[in-house]
Amino acid sequence: MGDRTLVQWEQNRDNAPRSLTVDLYAGGPAPEGVLDEVTFYQVPYAPSTQGADERIDMIARMPSLEVVQLLSAGYEHVLPLVPENVTLCNGRGLHDASTAEHALALILAARRNLPRWALAQREHHWDSAPVGSLADSRVMIVGYGSIGQAIESRLLPFETEVVRVASRARPDEGVHGVDELHALLPDTDVVVLVTPLTETTRGLFGAREFALLRDGALVVNVGRGAVLDTGALLAEKGRVRAALDVTDPEPPPADHPLWSAPGVLLTPHVAGGSAAFYPRARAFMDAQLARWATGGELANVVRPGARER
Amino acid sequence: MGDRTLVQWEQNRDNAPRSLTVDLYAGGPAPEGVLDEVTFYQVPYAPSTQGADERIDMIARMPSLEVVQLLSAGYEHVLPLVPENVTLCNGRGLHDASTAEHALALILAARRNLPRWALAQREHHWDSAPVGSLADSRVMIVGYGSIGQAIESRLLPFETEVVRVASRARPDEGVHGVDELHALLPDTDVVVLVTPLTETTRGLFGAREFALLRDGALVVNVGRGAVLDTGALLAEKGRVRAALDVTDPEPPPADHPLWSAPGVLLTPHVAGGSAAFYPRARAFMDAQLARWATGGELANVVRPGARER
Repeated sequence: MGDRTLVQWEQNRDNAPRSLTVDLYAGGPAPEGVLDEVTFYQVPYAPSTQGADERIDMIARMPSLEVVQLLSAGYEHVLPLVPENVTLCNGRGLHDASTAEHALALILAARRNLPRWALAQREHHWDSAPVGSLADSRVMIVGYGSIGQAIESRLLPFETEVVRVASRARPDEGVHGVDELHALLPDTDVVVLVTPLTETTRGLFGAREFALLRDGALVVNVGRGAVLDTGALLAEKGRVRAALDVTDPEPPPADHPLWSAPGVLLTPHVAGGSAAFYPRARAFMDAQLARWATGGELANVVRPGARER
Repeated sequence: MGDRTLVQWEQNRDNAPRSLTVDLYAGGPAPEGVLDEVTFYQVPYAPSTQGADERIDMIARMPSLEVVQLLSAGYEHVLPLVPENVTLCNGRGLHDASTAEHALALILAARRNLPRWALAQREHHWDSAPVGSLADSRVMIVGYGSIGQAIESRLLPFETEVVRVASRARPDEGVHGVDELHALLPDTDVVVLVTPLTETTRGLFGAREFALLRDGALVVNVGRGAVLDTGALLAEKGRVRAALDVTDPEPPPADHPLWSAPGVLLTPHVAGGSAAFYPRARAFMDAQLARWATGGELANVVRPGARER
């Protein structure tokens, strides 16, 4: 019986240890004829997939499978489709630089009125006007994990103060628990939401939380759309500003009020999948295949299979 | 005879040592009746003044004057109007945080397609598309002084490499001389121009320099408009991108091709005068007035007067 590895990129095939048989699969129709023999399957990365997904459905047709490797951080959607004895690995960390960079881009764009000037430029109008800044702001990062840390390291040179919030307090690391959120919000200038979507984070930022923010505060969402209550944001009518890379619903229908809500800046779920992602993902895959070939411990295991037991 | 100080902000009047007689003057008609007695004049800050300027012309009507304090970094326009025996101080350093922040805002906006999405949002269009990033870029700072350092400290956490260029090489600090510019440009992804306008920097970045840049490179100007040759940029027709806070001419007339040039992002000379400037300027003035009152050495002297001789 064969022992095949499926990867997306030529670099990973070319750099793989000679002991592995590596085929390319970058999406599209399933590679018939080899599915029986696939033991390691790197699911091709697609920034934003909706609806039926051959890349995922193929997993059920791989009887020899030992490892499913995702390059997204989220894996909840795939978990039910991966057999119990198969190890599931995700792309934790590979999007940190990209997502953190986008968070800063959104914060700076909102504070520096860039959308206003993009529109003024279109009208050939030199629209000189007072402009805000990020310096001296207190920025709260809600969901202080690896991406949160990457955001923090980029924020600090801007002469800001960072407030760390996570689901549970970690006093040794100066991380507040989310139960302190309401006490902290009145002194916050910028809130960055970067949490995964769970039953506890759904609607985490709603009417009560907006009401605690001062006028002109900014809420940035680079996590998951449904963490922020869209209706509550719209009810603020521009009193609090928002810069959202993820929305609820996503994308908003063309007639949704979010598109033209005052003080709201939207980007189309591009934070994590920018050009910064690809070299990091390829380097990770080179290293992961080296570990796989030598029987080493895999990185980014989110659910161990038979191999780890 | 009196000994009056003119300042712009109440904070500085209120915090001034009691030994000083401090009046407020925030611009507009000259404060008649006190001009004879003014010894220290802080010229009211105006982000972008054009044409006749009462604030500056007033200097000729102050026979007791000992110090003119500007809050702009540039002072060349005022120098000929300040008598030889009067000390001239500028606002060096007060705009660093603001200008550096704007440079990053422009770089990130250009790399992350924010103008495109501001326009897509206006059309209620979820315009998902591949997006660039700043990470892994080599960024050249042309004019490596205090603002250049502030830009560098904000760039480095974005996983970039910074190349420092100044008018003269300073090997101990890793600063290249501008004579190495042409050798360095082919390996550069982003160029940030932050030089003052002098006879040697006028037109510094022109056709030859653009030609040395790779496709898709980005040129940012937060220094002075005429450092970049506008015609040479337009001739690139989008091959090289630009994000300009200062332009030549400034502002561009409504029918100027710069407004709609492909890959060009414009902001209306707001880099240095954002909200970040004001608390820094007020704190500087508090300290400067304390030095003035006690006969201490003034900060930011750009041309000493009789007082320093």
